[in-house]
Amino acid sequence: MMNDIMENEQLSTEEVQPLALKNDLLLRAARGEQVERPPVWLMRQAGRILPQYRELRGKLSGFKELVETPELACEVTIQPVDELGVDAAIIFSDILVVPEVMGLRYEMIPGKGPMFPMTIQLEEDVDKLIAGEKAALQLDYVYKAIQLTKAELNGRVPLIGFCGAPWTLMAYMIEGSGSKTFSKARRFLYKKPISSHVLLQKITDTTVDYLKGQIKAGADLVQVFDSWAGILSPEQYKVFGLPYLKQICESITEVPVTVFAKNAWFALDELGKLDCNVIGIDWNTTAQNAREMVGTTKALQGNLDPCLLYAPEDVICSATHKMVRDFGDKYIANLGHGVYPDTPLDNVKIFVDAVKSFGA
Amino acid sequence: MMNDIMENEQLSTEEVQPLALKNDLLLRAARGEQVERPPVWLMRQAGRILPQYRELRGKLSGFKELVETPELACEVTIQPVDELGVDAAIIFSDILVVPEVMGLRYEMIPGKGPMFPMTIQLEEDVDKLIAGEKAALQLDYVYKAIQLTKAELNGRVPLIGFCGAPWTLMAYMIEGSGSKTFSKARRFLYKKPISSHVLLQKITDTTVDYLKGQIKAGADLVQVFDSWAGILSPEQYKVFGLPYLKQICESITEVPVTVFAKNAWFALDELGKLDCNVIGIDWNTTAQNAREMVGTTKALQGNLDPCLLYAPEDVICSATHKMVRDFGDKYIANLGHGVYPDTPLDNVKIFVDAVKSFGA
Repeated sequence: MMNDIMENEQLSTEEVQPLALKNDLLLRAARGEQVERPPVWLMRQAGRILPQYRELRGKLSGFKELVETPELACEVTIQPVDELGVDAAIIFSDILVVPEVMGLRYEMIPGKGPMFPMTIQLEEDVDKLIAGEKAALQLDYVYKAIQLTKAELNGRVPLIGFCGAPWTLMAYMIEGSGSKTFSKARRFLYKKPISSHVLLQKITDTTVDYLKGQIKAGADLVQVFDSWAGILSPEQYKVFGLPYLKQICESITEVPVTVFAKNAWFALDELGKLDCNVIGIDWNTTAQNAREMVGTTKALQGNLDPCLLYAPEDVICSATHKMVRDFGDKYIANLGHGVYPDTPLDNVKIFVDAVKSFGA
Repeated sequence: MMNDIMENEQLSTEEVQPLALKNDLLLRAARGEQVERPPVWLMRQAGRILPQYRELRGKLSGFKELVETPELACEVTIQPVDELGVDAAIIFSDILVVPEVMGLRYEMIPGKGPMFPMTIQLEEDVDKLIAGEKAALQLDYVYKAIQLTKAELNGRVPLIGFCGAPWTLMAYMIEGSGSKTFSKARRFLYKKPISSHVLLQKITDTTVDYLKGQIKAGADLVQVFDSWAGILSPEQYKVFGLPYLKQICESITEVPVTVFAKNAWFALDELGKLDCNVIGIDWNTTAQNAREMVGTTKALQGNLDPCLLYAPEDVICSATHKMVRDFGDKYIANLGHGVYPDTPLDNVKIFVDAVKSFGA
């Protein structure tokens, strides 16, 4: 193994050649291979939980400066790898970069979240959107950040790329911001189903090109976040959610793909049939339920309640060990959603260490 | 039937005697009896969808004036019965009246929702709360509103009373407002489990007395709203949610009880074992799934996506007919959550009429 790396490092001075990974637990687990222990990382691990992040962020004009400056995105992507000892890095970015290059600029309002000054209201608004390669090419700053990060990581751990699922991006593009009910976006589905499909297809086309760009730049695995899957009825999700996830999964053959459809328990059986490698699980679903619904072919990723990381050390440890035990094989340890920004850093480390020490 | 009513009306001039209901579809369906057609009503039917409501509300100082003035609460409770032809009235009130009489006053901020100037932060805060009969007695204005409404309805349709579930009320009492994650409240469960149980028991004791007060005043059925059930993990819901619902269900023997635990699909089997008559179903759960998980003994209520009422008439009709057909027997037609305030009134009527005309 050591020799392989040395060899690759020598090669890489002559031509850009992928480095062998020193820690490829995540990729092996994603492919369903036997692993020594489950890999562990956290959604939103690069962010406010880290003092290094808060310090850097304090010096900048805003969130978007961080996302759009490859050197800075690289820096914060690597911070949790150094600090937490996780088994993967995930590129620091935002799912809303895709709507932006399609023509809908987003802003990040401190303490409030994302906001779109312009939204999709009419069918004509959908027609005006840019899609596919032409849109994805504008995301060059993400590809550069991935290249820099890969070089900087130097094979320590795999780098995860990501995107938002078409339905989730559509929800923001119509609603214009976060929402409890996303009732404007859901109303659009019922009132303008044909236009909805045109929009979803445009997002899908852009997303496929975007993911391929990330993979070309060095992403070792890509995750699709369908954060608002759970507000659709099972019937709507079958029509407006799953078919576009299917297209994405079938288009990405280069690296393993993870699909995380939050709160879409009602579609876990359908998600289990997608041509992807890993299904993300939220904390509303037990390991047993998840395995029964998804089936046995895919790896599962999740699902500790992020709130558990506020609990005392012994509670975090025992809940984490129970989770790892309950999920068993073909498993990647993570939370059931992004880590909350005010989680004590020590508790995050307790969680990571609890996974690593499981069974030891 | 006609004779029975006449007889009761004569009796009631001499002593306060319950009027026989001219339309008791809801109560018969709730008890699992065979009915001519499923009864239909809508959560939040008394409110902004009605021009009469908006006109009255515009003249008042605020939401709480409406809740706390029995004559006004009675007026808006009856408006949808006149206007929509629904098979039940539900008393106009708010679940947050219970925390208020326990010691935490709430405000209703226009466009924002509920807000508590003081919240539960420490264990001592829990100890200071008033509970049980002493608290419930202060809700006299609700009991008066129920009495007035019963008299005014004159037996046309049953009157539903309601309350928030202990966990849902606790969530507001700690969080201080609505929230996407209720992470403060869930953190409290993990960090202070003993104090959480003390708080939940106090809310439960108050709720039981409150529901008994509503029933004594004339409520024909009571519904418990566990609006934030779905943000708990299955394990937490077993510990902090279900046992208190169980206590409430076992304490209320006078009238049928409906439990609506939104997004708690993972607990539908446990909810099916409660000593209640009806389980409310949200739009994430199909009729078939709901029946499989709840079992065959209880009536089910729900579950049209409120967003569907923005759709064209033919879509509303066919989706409503499909829903009624899918649920079959032991069924009360409703939405899967409260009707959205900007829903066109005509579309609400189309929904109600579609249920009534089903099979005709």
